[in-house]
Amino acid sequence: MDFVSTDSIRNANPLKYAQEITFRTPLPLELGQTLPEIRIVYETYGQLNEKKDNAVLLCHALSGDSHAAAHDSEDDPGWWEIMVGPGKPIDTRQFFVICSNCLGGCRGTTGPNDINPQTGKRYGTSFPEITVGDIVEAQNRLIEHLGINRLLAVIGGSLGGINAIEWATRFPDKIAAAVPLAAGSHLTSQALAFDIVARNAIQSDPNFHGGEYHEYGTVPADGLAIARMLGHITYLSRESMMKKFDTDRNEGRKMNTKFETKFSVGSYLAYQGDKFVERFDANSYLTLSTAIDLFELGSTPAVLKKSLRKSMCRWLILSFSSDWLFPPLFSRHIAEALAALDKRVNYCDIPSECGHDAFLLPNDFTLYGEMIRAFLKNAAFEIASGGAPPFQRPDRLDYEQILDLIPRGASVLDLGCGKGGLLARLRQREEKRQFEESGLRQNSSAALPHILGLEINEKYVLQCIQRGIDVVQANLNEGLAAFEENQFDFVILSKTLQTIRDVEFVLDEMLRVGRRCIVSFPNLGYREHRRRLSEDGRAPQFAHGAETMDWYSTSDVRFLTLADFEDFCRKKNIHIHSLIPLDTRQHKPVTENPNENADVVVVVVSTG
Amino acid sequence: MDFVSTDSIRNANPLKYAQEITFRTPLPLELGQTLPEIRIVYETYGQLNEKKDNAVLLCHALSGDSHAAAHDSEDDPGWWEIMVGPGKPIDTRQFFVICSNCLGGCRGTTGPNDINPQTGKRYGTSFPEITVGDIVEAQNRLIEHLGINRLLAVIGGSLGGINAIEWATRFPDKIAAAVPLAAGSHLTSQALAFDIVARNAIQSDPNFHGGEYHEYGTVPADGLAIARMLGHITYLSRESMMKKFDTDRNEGRKMNTKFETKFSVGSYLAYQGDKFVERFDANSYLTLSTAIDLFELGSTPAVLKKSLRKSMCRWLILSFSSDWLFPPLFSRHIAEALAALDKRVNYCDIPSECGHDAFLLPNDFTLYGEMIRAFLKNAAFEIASGGAPPFQRPDRLDYEQILDLIPRGASVLDLGCGKGGLLARLRQREEKRQFEESGLRQNSSAALPHILGLEINEKYVLQCIQRGIDVVQANLNEGLAAFEENQFDFVILSKTLQTIRDVEFVLDEMLRVGRRCIVSFPNLGYREHRRRLSEDGRAPQFAHGAETMDWYSTSDVRFLTLADFEDFCRKKNIHIHSLIPLDTRQHKPVTENPNENADVVVVVVSTG
Repeated sequence: MDFVSTDSIRNANPLKYAQEITFRTPLPLELGQTLPEIRIVYETYGQLNEKKDNAVLLCHALSGDSHAAAHDSEDDPGWWEIMVGPGKPIDTRQFFVICSNCLGGCRGTTGPNDINPQTGKRYGTSFPEITVGDIVEAQNRLIEHLGINRLLAVIGGSLGGINAIEWATRFPDKIAAAVPLAAGSHLTSQALAFDIVARNAIQSDPNFHGGEYHEYGTVPADGLAIARMLGHITYLSRESMMKKFDTDRNEGRKMNTKFETKFSVGSYLAYQGDKFVERFDANSYLTLSTAIDLFELGSTPAVLKKSLRKSMCRWLILSFSSDWLFPPLFSRHIAEALAALDKRVNYCDIPSECGHDAFLLPNDFTLYGEMIRAFLKNAAFEIASGGAPPFQRPDRLDYEQILDLIPRGASVLDLGCGKGGLLARLRQREEKRQFEESGLRQNSSAALPHILGLEINEKYVLQCIQRGIDVVQANLNEGLAAFEENQFDFVILSKTLQTIRDVEFVLDEMLRVGRRCIVSFPNLGYREHRRRLSEDGRAPQFAHGAETMDWYSTSDVRFLTLADFEDFCRKKNIHIHSLIPLDTRQHKPVTENPNENADVVVVVVSTG
Repeated sequence: MDFVSTDSIRNANPLKYAQEITFRTPLPLELGQTLPEIRIVYETYGQLNEKKDNAVLLCHALSGDSHAAAHDSEDDPGWWEIMVGPGKPIDTRQFFVICSNCLGGCRGTTGPNDINPQTGKRYGTSFPEITVGDIVEAQNRLIEHLGINRLLAVIGGSLGGINAIEWATRFPDKIAAAVPLAAGSHLTSQALAFDIVARNAIQSDPNFHGGEYHEYGTVPADGLAIARMLGHITYLSRESMMKKFDTDRNEGRKMNTKFETKFSVGSYLAYQGDKFVERFDANSYLTLSTAIDLFELGSTPAVLKKSLRKSMCRWLILSFSSDWLFPPLFSRHIAEALAALDKRVNYCDIPSECGHDAFLLPNDFTLYGEMIRAFLKNAAFEIASGGAPPFQRPDRLDYEQILDLIPRGASVLDLGCGKGGLLARLRQREEKRQFEESGLRQNSSAALPHILGLEINEKYVLQCIQRGIDVVQANLNEGLAAFEENQFDFVILSKTLQTIRDVEFVLDEMLRVGRRCIVSFPNLGYREHRRRLSEDGRAPQFAHGAETMDWYSTSDVRFLTLADFEDFCRKKNIHIHSLIPLDTRQHKPVTENPNENADVVVVVVSTG
């Protein structure tokens, strides 16, 4: 192992387009200490517009830097090449993109291997313990320096993700949108434990010399390499490692390394460990990994809500199903807390085999890239025009009936909202009302009542985001625990009841969260269904859109008549406010014998 | 950190009841080298019976030893105290229990910190690379020394689990039952990667001196402690760590350690790391963890079947749902390969939050302890008497009809076998037939046709095991990919069709695996169901046992008439061999208008 000085790290791969700015005013840190001055290295892409409302700040992960993407065809690719550039989801033709090396790093911005101006010596271990809040304070100085009052968005994954979350809560009026990927409210104790073992490995290395290794001309290469190997395992998923290493499991490569290369995965880890030592600094690793570990937005819904209450931006939160460093659950909890606070939030767990690193990889990019593209585009559009993009009127009789049942100004939660057709229609109506009432073109959708959809299918989630409808991915069978009692004026379950196994539980949850609930379902008692069973001796068939489904292929799992539902409500002490039987085949409401003449029923209920 | 000599490890906590035996004959090893002699330290519990057919060999995990349980009230508790003792699942009143420290260990049995008799010096790094096969060869010498020809069972978890698997394949005629817990066909690449990082940490420790640390009077304490911390994380689950550490996450304890104690989980790891160094040897760690890593029964179904083909014992394979070191999937694959080979196998994934260590903990013991108890008891009973324990005749009309449809001697797979009522009845019939045909009391159930149940509910799995019915836990919706084409004469789906979402897929799978399939289901066309819908305007109700279920609480998700099923068979080119309509309310077959008069239908089908 060659020894690598940390200066050579900075100089090894020069950042051609990087700029730097030094702030001479001391930076007070969250845990009490102060940095006498800070230097920030950053890169920018695209142009800041005249109104200065198109700036997007990118935040990098632990080992990243300011080089998010290539600036021209000669330039080296950056860490988020797939995402940033002309025509890409973070479109540099439309947005002014800023990416800075974060405080505590080792790629130009002030960090532990810098000279402390007060002592003339390197900080080393005397570099203060910093938090993600301090990283954001440093970034804020850069943003102010660039003359930007309010960022359109702050976006990042992993450390960059909690960095974005911190922005939304620390400077709520300075950011219009937050997009944390592969992040969470805090590290799990499991992930924290891995960080601790990694730091123990670095600090146990005799070349670490209590962090003063520069003084000794050494580098704790073994410890840092072991830390990186460990980190690397947590960035991959079990599935992706299986695919990568299982076929040639026992075939280690011959390499010039002191580490074990017996198995294919061993050679890979040895390579990653050795390479990392050439480009990263041990003290920076300790500083940044500790900052991640100290981040804690809250581990209970109550604390999370307290932390997020002051946030004013819209959110797009993305997790990745096989990420076990920041598991999806901890992203979901943030989304749920925001939804419970009536904040504008979108959430999706992207199905992926790529683990934590998924946000850097092209594998699942089609889905999450398009979500970010649509979300940013709509956010920019709304800020510029004050309203959502226009939307075609839906053509479903039960939708029209449901819209008529909801008074203007009511907050609405739509369970199983699909592509957001009903909510898009509702939102348009609200914007129109606002316009008529105020006589002005509304300039902020913040004044609209809370309109939110829950949907399990990620493809529909994307379509909702594209329509500018806020949507949180959720499995209704797991209930609505995140939401407050009576949080919404109306909760809607439109043609979804029959697909839910645990009907009682879901209805109880709806009735808890909504003052009124609107339920629509197909009526098994419809005359054609009765005829088919009693005369033909065949199971009734229900339509799904244009298709009629067979008994073995329908997604329906519950079959009930209007009378069954009424009986259920009596038993469960549920009050029926109104009941609208529909004959959707003839596109009209039913007036007589509803249990026989209606094929679909819309009911408004509340707790008795 | 105090330096601890490996001799003191052995002497620190003397094993009062341990015995030792040295075999002077050299032991040839799987990878080519030879050990000139081996010493084995072991403990025994209970008495070997006269027929010497009640011996149970326990195999310990990486850091375990021969002390499985206390021998008396004064004695220290052992590593499997919950499992081993009078009246416990491995009942020392009934069984002669043997537990030896495994080859390569550091608690008495020959390992790398022993003196090599050929050189008079410690083996150190010259200790040969051993495999789990070598560990079994050493144990076999002990078993022979004890005068045992055939072990009733070999049982163990983790390393002990793959040790049990190796017994079943290396000495198929010397073991009647294998019970691997928390084990698998091989380590995942993820788990393997952690082992590699742990070994790198030990070998990078400057006190390791290339493994010759005894010569230098040092111990690679830092490296070994870091290896242990890392291992420890993989033994717990994310959930159990959350419960243990999340509430006082930031409250590290003050401790006399060189490791980080900032967070509660950090203090815990530092303590575990430091403590381990006092009781375990670094070279043993390298030797045994490498032996685990080298174990590979096969990672494809074909190779697994090849490895398992010679096994002759019955199996009980248990995994734990939150175990991510040996994830359940890799246990399931072994079970599936055995089932595909018509071997006698039971498998269950025990729901647990305790991770890999679950098999050592009392939390989920009620379920897996009882499974082991029942399995051992029945295995001993069968070996002694040659048949399964007697069983009460079931009282379900469709069971009787199904039994009549299956010719004697046919192999049978029962999908969704519940408590095993049908299979117990079938097995009894087969044993009786065998007895009548041979005129002898059968002395082995090996000659019986393959009779196996699949069941998803672990409580029913336990009841099957208690009845001596082989059962593999499985979710039918995932298909039957493990089984061969036409492997069974009959595949049964009794009153389960209506609970399956993907009917087409499951029926296709049944028809692939069985020459004939017997399907029974409730008939929606039954006159009472028709009357209820057409006259009362209410959803038909189906009975589940004595109970009638409502539309919102039934486990049924598919509703079909006999005519629907016939139509489905025509469309899918499925041949109906016989069709038995039943009126179970009047307990008799139906002769006229079956689609109207039968409430349950039994059908025999095959691919057209």
